[in-house]
Amino acid sequence: MELELLDNVLCKLKQNSSVLTGPGDDCAVVKIGGENLLLAVDQLTMDVHFTQDTSPERAGAKLVKRNLSDIAAMGGTPLWMLLTINNGGCSEKWLERFILGAENCAESYDVPIVGGDTSSMPGTGFSASITIAGRAETPVLRSGAQENDGVYVTGLVGNSFASGHHLDFLPQLDEGRFLSKYASAMMDISDGLLLDISRMARASRADFFIDPQKVLLRSGAALPGALRDGEDHGLIFTSCSDVRDEFTQRFPATPIARIGWVGSGRGVVWNLNNDQPFDMKNSGYEH
Amino acid sequence: MELELLDNVLCKLKQNSSVLTGPGDDCAVVKIGGENLLLAVDQLTMDVHFTQDTSPERAGAKLVKRNLSDIAAMGGTPLWMLLTINNGGCSEKWLERFILGAENCAESYDVPIVGGDTSSMPGTGFSASITIAGRAETPVLRSGAQENDGVYVTGLVGNSFASGHHLDFLPQLDEGRFLSKYASAMMDISDGLLLDISRMARASRADFFIDPQKVLLRSGAALPGALRDGEDHGLIFTSCSDVRDEFTQRFPATPIARIGWVGSGRGVVWNLNNDQPFDMKNSGYEH
Repeated sequence: MELELLDNVLCKLKQNSSVLTGPGDDCAVVKIGGENLLLAVDQLTMDVHFTQDTSPERAGAKLVKRNLSDIAAMGGTPLWMLLTINNGGCSEKWLERFILGAENCAESYDVPIVGGDTSSMPGTGFSASITIAGRAETPVLRSGAQENDGVYVTGLVGNSFASGHHLDFLPQLDEGRFLSKYASAMMDISDGLLLDISRMARASRADFFIDPQKVLLRSGAALPGALRDGEDHGLIFTSCSDVRDEFTQRFPATPIARIGWVGSGRGVVWNLNNDQPFDMKNSGYEH
Repeated sequence: MELELLDNVLCKLKQNSSVLTGPGDDCAVVKIGGENLLLAVDQLTMDVHFTQDTSPERAGAKLVKRNLSDIAAMGGTPLWMLLTINNGGCSEKWLERFILGAENCAESYDVPIVGGDTSSMPGTGFSASITIAGRAETPVLRSGAQENDGVYVTGLVGNSFASGHHLDFLPQLDEGRFLSKYASAMMDISDGLLLDISRMARASRADFFIDPQKVLLRSGAALPGALRDGEDHGLIFTSCSDVRDEFTQRFPATPIARIGWVGSGRGVVWNLNNDQPFDMKNSGYEH
């Protein structure tokens, strides 16, 4: 199935005046009671997002953290979650452990799971989803990149699956809120650095000029594959001010790199090593 | 799988002070910007909630209306939705038609779908979920029934599946908002009248005394089965004032019946025809 095509259908859904940002960003932004409410939903499917030998607690925590990362990407604060479970063949014990993993992780961020829905599906599969709600004073969209901004990445890139990072990562909530004061555009890296940068470039209607050598790689990762691995869950942001020194003082454990800049254009991502556009075929991990 | 047991796990999840009502009601109620925000999520799975020969447009609309009915049950106004699709074997065309059905229905209620997530699952299944957000000035919970209140049901009961009502029903949003001024407790009938009444009785820590002969049956429905059929999506409410005349003037197309009263107790549902508690084994349709 062409998920990208389906996403395009979602992105064309009609909105109304209460909606500041509809489908296509890390979160939707809607207005209620004078607040910017952030809303997002993510799914986790067995044999797609985790394997059957993953501990259910870690799988549950991963689903929570993927959603927290969507809030981080807007510079927001997470508030509440809803959990759905759709179960084919998993045992009751396994399901309870999955929910416990999700709950313990959510509680450590003081984000209560306020509701949910359980359903059974034919067959042996398992799927879960979390909807997250949050707030942001000044939500940062992926469409705001300006010509001459620098392009920055926080966290390491590549080898997320083999290293276990896709289960162990920490959503960069504090980093996202700090960066929201400086970033013109921001998103989290979920489907591969290159694919996500190209989405930011198209949303911002600007060309991005990237030096792959500047990308900070996770142990065991190598170019060019690391640019296409998924689930890094660091942040990509653009800014006209270089905040690396202050960022590093505040977040010494979070690497940050300037990997390029924004130029005029319509959404092409250029490789500064050969002055050619990156080949966007099979450019990332869609799931 | 024991869904009820899993629901019990969900109901015990820890909450914080921002949460007025957590898991276990038709919607969670949380506070933001001085508003009561309602949040709920519902799933729809092929071969569970609809069959493969159901038109995808009607299935998509059903999912939207199930969620609208959760808002109606709180006396609220729906505002926004998020849609997830988890697809095994359905064609792209089928998926587009499903989304179109959901969108057209949502649009007719001026509730934009502001975001979503698409994923693929191994196998041939299909599952979708919608998260709904809304607001309510005075949300009506299922836990507020008081001794000597009357017990009322709006809409007809039974034979929902064979009659197609489970696809064609209209969520009682206007009715719910009107009743929110009078009802001490309210919920929608999703898993069977008897099972849902027993949930309201337990949540309210009161016994309910019900006369099955007073229940208004849908064409083709018969007692006692109609009490256990699911997906009627009318409203059950309790009130100390008899609003039937005013209700019928405002909503002439929506039947309303007084089917019993609330007494002291701990959550037992009594059958006034034989002065025995109803047998709650296999009392409803859980899904």
